[in-house]
Amino acid sequence: MKRPKGKALIAQSGGPTAVINASACGVIQAALAQRDVFTGVYGALNGILGVLQEQLMDLEREDPGQIDRLKRTPSAALGSCRHKLRALERDRRDYERIIEVFRAHDIRYFFYIGGNDSMDTAAKLGRLAREVDYEIVAIGVPKTIDNDLAFTDHCPGYGSVAKFNAASVMEAGLDTEALSTHDTCTVHEVMGRNAGWIAAATGLARRSEADAPHLILLPEVPFVVERFVERVQSCLAQYQRCFVVCGEGVKTPEGAYLGEAGGAFATDAFGHAQLGGAGEAVRALIETRVGVKARTNRAGTTQRNAMHFASKTDVEEAYRVGRVAVEAALGGANAMMITLERHAGASYRCGTGLVELEKVANGEKTVPPEFLAPDGMGVSSAFTAYAAPLIVGEADLEIAPDGLPVYARLRKHLVAPRTGRRYNVP
Amino acid sequence: MKRPKGKALIAQSGGPTAVINASACGVIQAALAQRDVFTGVYGALNGILGVLQEQLMDLEREDPGQIDRLKRTPSAALGSCRHKLRALERDRRDYERIIEVFRAHDIRYFFYIGGNDSMDTAAKLGRLAREVDYEIVAIGVPKTIDNDLAFTDHCPGYGSVAKFNAASVMEAGLDTEALSTHDTCTVHEVMGRNAGWIAAATGLARRSEADAPHLILLPEVPFVVERFVERVQSCLAQYQRCFVVCGEGVKTPEGAYLGEAGGAFATDAFGHAQLGGAGEAVRALIETRVGVKARTNRAGTTQRNAMHFASKTDVEEAYRVGRVAVEAALGGANAMMITLERHAGASYRCGTGLVELEKVANGEKTVPPEFLAPDGMGVSSAFTAYAAPLIVGEADLEIAPDGLPVYARLRKHLVAPRTGRRYNVP
Repeated sequence: MKRPKGKALIAQSGGPTAVINASACGVIQAALAQRDVFTGVYGALNGILGVLQEQLMDLEREDPGQIDRLKRTPSAALGSCRHKLRALERDRRDYERIIEVFRAHDIRYFFYIGGNDSMDTAAKLGRLAREVDYEIVAIGVPKTIDNDLAFTDHCPGYGSVAKFNAASVMEAGLDTEALSTHDTCTVHEVMGRNAGWIAAATGLARRSEADAPHLILLPEVPFVVERFVERVQSCLAQYQRCFVVCGEGVKTPEGAYLGEAGGAFATDAFGHAQLGGAGEAVRALIETRVGVKARTNRAGTTQRNAMHFASKTDVEEAYRVGRVAVEAALGGANAMMITLERHAGASYRCGTGLVELEKVANGEKTVPPEFLAPDGMGVSSAFTAYAAPLIVGEADLEIAPDGLPVYARLRKHLVAPRTGRRYNVP
Repeated sequence: MKRPKGKALIAQSGGPTAVINASACGVIQAALAQRDVFTGVYGALNGILGVLQEQLMDLEREDPGQIDRLKRTPSAALGSCRHKLRALERDRRDYERIIEVFRAHDIRYFFYIGGNDSMDTAAKLGRLAREVDYEIVAIGVPKTIDNDLAFTDHCPGYGSVAKFNAASVMEAGLDTEALSTHDTCTVHEVMGRNAGWIAAATGLARRSEADAPHLILLPEVPFVVERFVERVQSCLAQYQRCFVVCGEGVKTPEGAYLGEAGGAFATDAFGHAQLGGAGEAVRALIETRVGVKARTNRAGTTQRNAMHFASKTDVEEAYRVGRVAVEAALGGANAMMITLERHAGASYRCGTGLVELEKVANGEKTVPPEFLAPDGMGVSSAFTAYAAPLIVGEADLEIAPDGLPVYARLRKHLVAPRTGRRYNVP
């Protein structure tokens, strides 16, 4: 299949992860090695915003050593954004602007590293490009700590956030154990708005029954106050302490986020809505309903960037899907996302595959019931078998003599605009 | 000087740290090697509570491999507590009970690993013992992430919490940079109720001007709303983002904790007191007064147990002060705490010294003005010179094939009670 000659553009989207830069590194290094096809390798500053605003970086001008260091650098070195494009069906202007920018710079390959929304954008972009007869190859590279993309066994970024949170829960669990006569309960809030994959992963820290976490609350399982209170009480009776992991997206049976519920139980204690998220709500509930002291941890953005204890498996796979994206583009794929496909068998092996962007865009994968304990407040052995291989190995880390990591910093050489107009991003 | 023969008792007190077990390991291993003096080596279960309740563990019956693993295990493996004894001046019962337990088990050496309060307890215990003519050697081993003990250059536990938080701020800072078009500000709350040493340490992450943290709020510097808002605004003008580190104990000029202030500025936004601590209060303030989106991180108890990225310097010093405590006891010291004494000179070297427990008990060391930037919202080069050596080196970490750390677990063999009575802890 004949491939167009032209520039490759790489963009990163949505929440950063420990390994989204490893994927970018894979794309960049693979693309730079194919100069017969790629007449240039560009990066979009701050994701799709940079495309709309025509802020494109020439990645060829970066130090190759810094590019290689992206493998060991968390967050999104090209910049990211949470900008939502206007719906193509109602307003084509954003998409037309993207094509305008692509055309002006002869961008023929678009590698978009992101989640559902990004795959949706890339799919629509490809559709519009065909309509206006602009040849473009769009390949999606999966990324999300939430692990909620369909059609892929798991998502790069998940293994590392899982490993860090599991280690943190193991460590904070020892704290709760040591101070159980005083701080009897700990609520550890983790990310995951709609899916409980991250919360579930902390179950990997529980090597024996008495270990933290004792209870895991996931967005998939409606939070029933009485049932929860009862489980905390029985946990206290058994272990004299209770360590609860709470996904930030845990909801009441009525579907309200616990972190915003404010209603039934949160107001019991203080007469007003809880701030500070689901973890704070659960903490207040424990203190008022169980009557023991509880405290909260919320790693927040540190968890998704914790390169200092990232999964080697995750980093390697993230880098691989980046390289494979370029190979797929050269091999004739278009409007596809790279997937991770786990091989059958006792030992973990994982290959890659392809799936239509359109399919991914509309799929969301939450934690299935068979991955949960019968009471929904823990994980099953099937989940452990699924998740355990993803956190294996410690990623390479470059540490300076000062005792802190060395992370890449790109120079971000912007190329001169060519469209001749500014575009007002709504 | 003649030393009594008898048992040694080790207790851990207050908030756990990454290295309080390393100190315990130092004491235990050094004591077990001196069987001509120490007729037994006991541990108190959950600190002073275990002494009052006569719950003592025979540490000689533990697997020596697990004892050695304490060097690489966070939290307090013997158990800790926050129990406050009744004031000796008003009510001698608690102290008399301790002497009763010591006498019953022929405990002649008391190694107490803790902070100010523990040193106070140990000092008073020694005083009462002299009054009732019971010979006891009490040696304090410094421990606190807060680094607020006087008479020691720094405290074991501080280097590790500093290193972890600095790395986390470096990593989360890259997140804020990547997503600055959306999550423009991040407030990262760290521990430290009265002293800002931990907050200050995150300044080590700032290798260049544009790096996080841009502003550091310490309990030592009264929080003036207008000044803070102005600094956030100028930071946004300069970097398009602002990363704030906030000590949990930051106070208003009137002396109210920000996390509990609820008053002047917190109610502007929501009409009620802020929950969730100082970080949430600062976040709400940024959103209402500066008008940009902000988010909070609060590592909570994970930060003080983050053995997975602990300071090798810290671990080694923690172990050393444990061993030195035993040597000091054998050498004739009594009612003293081991200190760390930094040698003069360009390269970091640190020895140990001794200070009277009574002195330490009443001292508290906050961050001095010369360690702060002129505006009080950052650190000076003098602070960096002080703190940088403490986070150097990566502590040994044992990682299982499953990708998670292996931490010690003691069997906690309780010895039979000998006092013949139960004691009701108030």
